[in-house]
Amino acid sequence: MMGKTISSNHFFSMLSPIREELRQVEARMGEALISDEEPLSAILRGLFISGGKRLRPALTILASKFRQSEASKVAALAAAVEMLHTATLVHDDMIDNSLMRRGNPTLNAAWDDGVVVLVGDYLFARSAALAAETESPRIISLFAKTLMLICSSELREALSIAKPNRKDYYWRISKKTASLFAAATEGGALLSEAVEEEVQGLRSYGYNLGMAFQIVDDILDFTGDEAELGKPIGGDLRQGVITLPVLYFLEENPDWGSVEMILRGGEEREEHIHSLVTRIKGSGAIRSSQAEAQGFTEKAKEALSVLPVNEYRQVMLELADYLMVRRS
Amino acid sequence: MMGKTISSNHFFSMLSPIREELRQVEARMGEALISDEEPLSAILRGLFISGGKRLRPALTILASKFRQSEASKVAALAAAVEMLHTATLVHDDMIDNSLMRRGNPTLNAAWDDGVVVLVGDYLFARSAALAAETESPRIISLFAKTLMLICSSELREALSIAKPNRKDYYWRISKKTASLFAAATEGGALLSEAVEEEVQGLRSYGYNLGMAFQIVDDILDFTGDEAELGKPIGGDLRQGVITLPVLYFLEENPDWGSVEMILRGGEEREEHIHSLVTRIKGSGAIRSSQAEAQGFTEKAKEALSVLPVNEYRQVMLELADYLMVRRS
Repeated sequence: MMGKTISSNHFFSMLSPIREELRQVEARMGEALISDEEPLSAILRGLFISGGKRLRPALTILASKFRQSEASKVAALAAAVEMLHTATLVHDDMIDNSLMRRGNPTLNAAWDDGVVVLVGDYLFARSAALAAETESPRIISLFAKTLMLICSSELREALSIAKPNRKDYYWRISKKTASLFAAATEGGALLSEAVEEEVQGLRSYGYNLGMAFQIVDDILDFTGDEAELGKPIGGDLRQGVITLPVLYFLEENPDWGSVEMILRGGEEREEHIHSLVTRIKGSGAIRSSQAEAQGFTEKAKEALSVLPVNEYRQVMLELADYLMVRRS
Repeated sequence: MMGKTISSNHFFSMLSPIREELRQVEARMGEALISDEEPLSAILRGLFISGGKRLRPALTILASKFRQSEASKVAALAAAVEMLHTATLVHDDMIDNSLMRRGNPTLNAAWDDGVVVLVGDYLFARSAALAAETESPRIISLFAKTLMLICSSELREALSIAKPNRKDYYWRISKKTASLFAAATEGGALLSEAVEEEVQGLRSYGYNLGMAFQIVDDILDFTGDEAELGKPIGGDLRQGVITLPVLYFLEENPDWGSVEMILRGGEEREEHIHSLVTRIKGSGAIRSSQAEAQGFTEKAKEALSVLPVNEYRQVMLELADYLMVRRS
């Protein structure tokens, strides 16, 4: 738990230049979640109190800091991004039947599927209403299309069209994760009326940061600490989700058989997956995956070169490095 | 089946002044549903081919006809409204575990819950992207807030906050149904840059038409023909959904006990519900409900009095009368 404390503190102190803006986003989300219906309000509050890093709202705020912007619109968009993210998690946890997230019970641990689906839908609607407060058709359209990308990547998995190879993996994480990071920074940039070159630079920062973030997430699913992560290790593989470390490992160790074989099931499945997780953890596949993540991190940092040097750019550079070494 | 043919034909011939616009909406939806992923495309096409009256798109088009508007934006909004409606049906059918709709198997008759949730989410996103094509922040915000109303009314039922009384019933159908009819007409009016008085008149038409429409729907669940409706009679009551005819009936026949008693379950539940459905069908509760629906229909027609007299206003008046006597 020591590691978590240090690393979380580092994260929050890094964001001190935008502390006031993050507080406004929190307040905006609080207001947006008040409903006439008490049980619904309580469910919604529970979802947002359980926290998370507010990384995506931070990206929107940081990206808006290179030109002039209206604080209330930035706060609305940042809140919209976080709520969209939360809505997708609510539906994902239901679909995967996950009972824990961030060390807390998920909604579907307490409510039946109907309620969980509707709470997710309500959050989609709420986030769209917040995005509409920007009064920017370009941002709203970006926002809606990002949700389409996220859904289509998840449908690709659910409909079993996904193929266990690296190309497919990159396609999937670019839609599932990087698209929302990119929308967060592009949206912030657009609100500040940045010039197009800056918008593209900030979008590219968000996109590449998101790719690195997801790869590190997928590495932590093998190397992380269950207490720090708030969920069991090896969960992806058990769910049948094939991530980069697995793909590298099987390329380097063909004697372990194919992914399809491993996931086929049967009595020895759990044992086989358990030894696979242990083997991957100490293997070169982790280093190869880290190198890939590092490559995206470098691209993210390079993309900022078109922007003026200021404290926010500095935070964005530090943030990129921090996300590589985070432990949860 | 004779009745259906006559009545559907009447409906479509009534809409002949906007036939070309409806065709454009159909084309716009077709384009919007093309996905790179073949199984997803096929699922989406299946949802829209199975049809429906396209009543809500027709309302958007008609409401846009009193001033000048851009045809492509009207088509985009009309398609967005129909897709939003379809998305809510997809999730509803999953939540209620309904296997038939409009005489066709529902998505959840063929796919597991995860796929159904994601297809619904994809349609929400697609409809938001279409709404964004109007480039009107007011319309987009109206659209998002309408989805919030729909979700919160359904959550009220799912969380069992709904109370079996007429006040609660009206609250529920105003959010669940009338809100989208109102958004359809208000959105169409806004796209045509109608003056505020006309916007409010058209909104009121949509709202009251939606109230009447839902009451008639709830009456047809008792008096309708299963073949024409494409679903079994008395379905609402079996699902525990208490509609206006039931409320009137129990007010007039207190010896039948309370709603809570009827729905409590036990061995005799199905038999009790069956006799209740039969009794309601021939009772004064149907006439009382029809009178309520007629009241909303009159209000809808009156709301059009602020609008110039033209063929579209005439269609809207006829449409209001038709929806009262429809058989499916």
